Amino acid sequence: MPNMVDLIIKKRDGLSLSPQEMEQFVSAVTKDDIADYQTSAMLMAMFLQGLTPEETVVLTHAMTHSGAVMDLSAIPGKKADKHSTGGVADTTTLILAPLVASCGVPVFKMSGRGLGFSGGTLDKLESIPGFSTALSPEAAIALCKKSGLVVMGQTKDLTPADQKLYALRDVTGTVDSIPLIVSSIMSKKIAAGADTIVLDVKCGSGAFMKDLPSAQSLARQMVQIGRSLGRRVSAVLSSMAQPLGLLIGNALEVKEAIAVLKGETGGDLLEVSLELGSRMLLLTDAVSSVEEGKTLLRRQIETGAGLDQLERLITQQGGDAAVLKDPDRLPNAAASLEVRAAKSGYLCAMDTASIGHTSVLLGAGRVKKTDAIDPAAGIAMAVRLGDFVQEGQLLGTLYARNDGLCAQGAALFASAFTFSEEKQALPPLILDIIEEETK
Amino acid sequence: MPNMVDLIIKKRDGLSLSPQEMEQFVSAVTKDDIADYQTSAMLMAMFLQGLTPEETVVLTHAMTHSGAVMDLSAIPGKKADKHSTGGVADTTTLILAPLVASCGVPVFKMSGRGLGFSGGTLDKLESIPGFSTALSPEAAIALCKKSGLVVMGQTKDLTPADQKLYALRDVTGTVDSIPLIVSSIMSKKIAAGADTIVLDVKCGSGAFMKDLPSAQSLARQMVQIGRSLGRRVSAVLSSMAQPLGLLIGNALEVKEAIAVLKGETGGDLLEVSLELGSRMLLLTDAVSSVEEGKTLLRRQIETGAGLDQLERLITQQGGDAAVLKDPDRLPNAAASLEVRAAKSGYLCAMDTASIGHTSVLLGAGRVKKTDAIDPAAGIAMAVRLGDFVQEGQLLGTLYARNDGLCAQGAALFASAFTFSEEKQALPPLILDIIEEETK
Repeated sequence: MPNMVDLIIKKRDGLSLSPQEMEQFVSAVTKDDIADYQTSAMLMAMFLQGLTPEETVVLTHAMTHSGAVMDLSAIPGKKADKHSTGGVADTTTLILAPLVASCGVPVFKMSGRGLGFSGGTLDKLESIPGFSTALSPEAAIALCKKSGLVVMGQTKDLTPADQKLYALRDVTGTVDSIPLIVSSIMSKKIAAGADTIVLDVKCGSGAFMKDLPSAQSLARQMVQIGRSLGRRVSAVLSSMAQPLGLLIGNALEVKEAIAVLKGETGGDLLEVSLELGSRMLLLTDAVSSVEEGKTLLRRQIETGAGLDQLERLITQQGGDAAVLKDPDRLPNAAASLEVRAAKSGYLCAMDTASIGHTSVLLGAGRVKKTDAIDPAAGIAMAVRLGDFVQEGQLLGTLYARNDGLCAQGAALFASAFTFSEEKQALPPLILDIIEEETK
Repeated sequence: MPNMVDLIIKKRDGLSLSPQEMEQFVSAVTKDDIADYQTSAMLMAMFLQGLTPEETVVLTHAMTHSGAVMDLSAIPGKKADKHSTGGVADTTTLILAPLVASCGVPVFKMSGRGLGFSGGTLDKLESIPGFSTALSPEAAIALCKKSGLVVMGQTKDLTPADQKLYALRDVTGTVDSIPLIVSSIMSKKIAAGADTIVLDVKCGSGAFMKDLPSAQSLARQMVQIGRSLGRRVSAVLSSMAQPLGLLIGNALEVKEAIAVLKGETGGDLLEVSLELGSRMLLLTDAVSSVEEGKTLLRRQIETGAGLDQLERLITQQGGDAAVLKDPDRLPNAAASLEVRAAKSGYLCAMDTASIGHTSVLLGAGRVKKTDAIDPAAGIAMAVRLGDFVQEGQLLGTLYARNDGLCAQGAALFASAFTFSEEKQALPPLILDIIEEETK
């Protein structure tokens, strides 16, 4: 066992840790053989000195195997998983998971709770009365084997090293490091057991990655790490120049997902869902091209097969599937407030982060892990980038448990919109695709 | 109160903390309002991103005032203090403190315990039977007022922020940072209350600073900080290319100091003591030039005034002053081992660090703060750089509590010597002097 101080000094001085040293560090973190103040000094040294691709692979591998690794071999076929780095009105999972599963590709989704802008997939699904994600691995495997789709909460014995490192990074200013993000995301995804992983890397004011080169670097490293560790991975880089869908909040996003699966609405949310979903089909060899995948997924919407799959998911996990026919059975907010434009002009920019922060303020997201979420709170957006907006026209409606919260959110929300006199070019929705280099 | 994570991120990103932010950080450390893992992340960020001179001044000032600051105004005249960054066989304090005090300049010395190569001044003095350094500030001031010289241990209520930061730096790989070293040393020295501070910055294989530019940078920053905070400071940069004196160890160094004060021995140890001591006289305006100071100090040796002052120091603090006449009353080691040269040649280099580590191995120094020290253990060096050494000639004698320890130390000790066929130029003893810029 090396002296942890020696390892910290090595990384501090810009040297690479050997595979054995990196494994010893992760093992010490897992077993509490290293003090938190030493781990945080190492994390800051890693943040500032960086990690080589080789170090990142070893770190990810060691974190993956710091706890239990799911064995999904009991479920026939290649299992698909996806991960989003998180955005605003980003409810693609609720759309593409049923669609892909309805094509016969098993989707095994282990999700965490959301922190920040909005709830996570678990929080969204739990806004459906009765829906439970607290499943044992055995129960989840059995459900996925039967129905082709399951969504379970992350178990405590998965990647304990990541749980400890992430908790420390969160309070020591060491979150925004690409190798640390890569190892955290990929260790969890690989431990969750699926054969293929499609990554949705969000880029823009409302996302973790603010600029395209950082997002590309993150995506490339994640794809490479996945391949190094025996998984098929590809990444879609999509824009967070504005909220992806129109509805922001937990029950609200379930409503929008249902509407998309019914074919009642589409737009950017559908487009990104198809882009991601078709790649899940491609990586699991269910189709031979992205176009074939998109065509197949569109048909699953037209035939209602995707909606039927969502109904099976809700029913198998104890939820009230009647919400599909009657979305008003989902929690509704007691208070609402319409926010209107103070001037006329073309909507040329949105500060998506401010819109996300507004939704947190309204009760839809958490600031601390222990915060409760209001499933009914959120925002219904009424405008998209490029729209010509008249003075007094509705920008969006805020929903919360009381008028005071709505009033508090209004100023921040209104400040998020920038208007111009002339129509400006819109940023592309799909910014880049990072495929695995070899099939 | 700012969020500590925001301050960590600011420093992590290479920005400067405002004076208020730096004070808030130190205040949080002092009051335990910041978690250790956050403090260590900040220390690593400070280590890697550095501190501006202004930040270092504010950090030092805040650390100085994190606890009690000694008020020595009851002692008439300008009080002198000195500090060494630590070396091997570096017992200048035991020589110059009595010499300077015997010239009528009050010397108020607050010392810590040694960690690493050898004991600190406290450990050395405590090898004299009965000698106590556990004095209250009031008792120490009274003794210094009466005799002109006191040596006390550092009190717990002095610079608590430094105590906490140092303890964390020690275990998180953040020791070797110039601004952190500067603020640690200078906050303690300023809080200890003397008007003038002479710094002995050691440079070379056996010292903290391995190269001259680093040592110069450290010295300059300490002199500037001292002036910024109202103290007169100058620094002597001296070589650690070999142990300064001939005897290494606690009782052994007391023996050598006594011999120097008796005029029985001299060499580099005397030369550095005179260099430092004359600058203590100069900064306190007791003399008007360094040469005048050295002449005065030499006279104090010749007349025995320095030895008399040491006798008063030992007596006032409960020690057995008979050791001055009969140094064999000091602890003597039970075992000894002579190490001889395996080949002939000019002694052209010593690995002073290895010689220091040998003395620790023999029992003369601490690895951990809680380790006990063997006052009798150590080394008597028999050679100096530049000597022609015959095969079989004595290099040094190791002293320890048993033969096993001596045998353990022998190989490391013998490895510290490098011989050449031709005589090589000797490095200078005094490498540089950093004076205060304005008087």
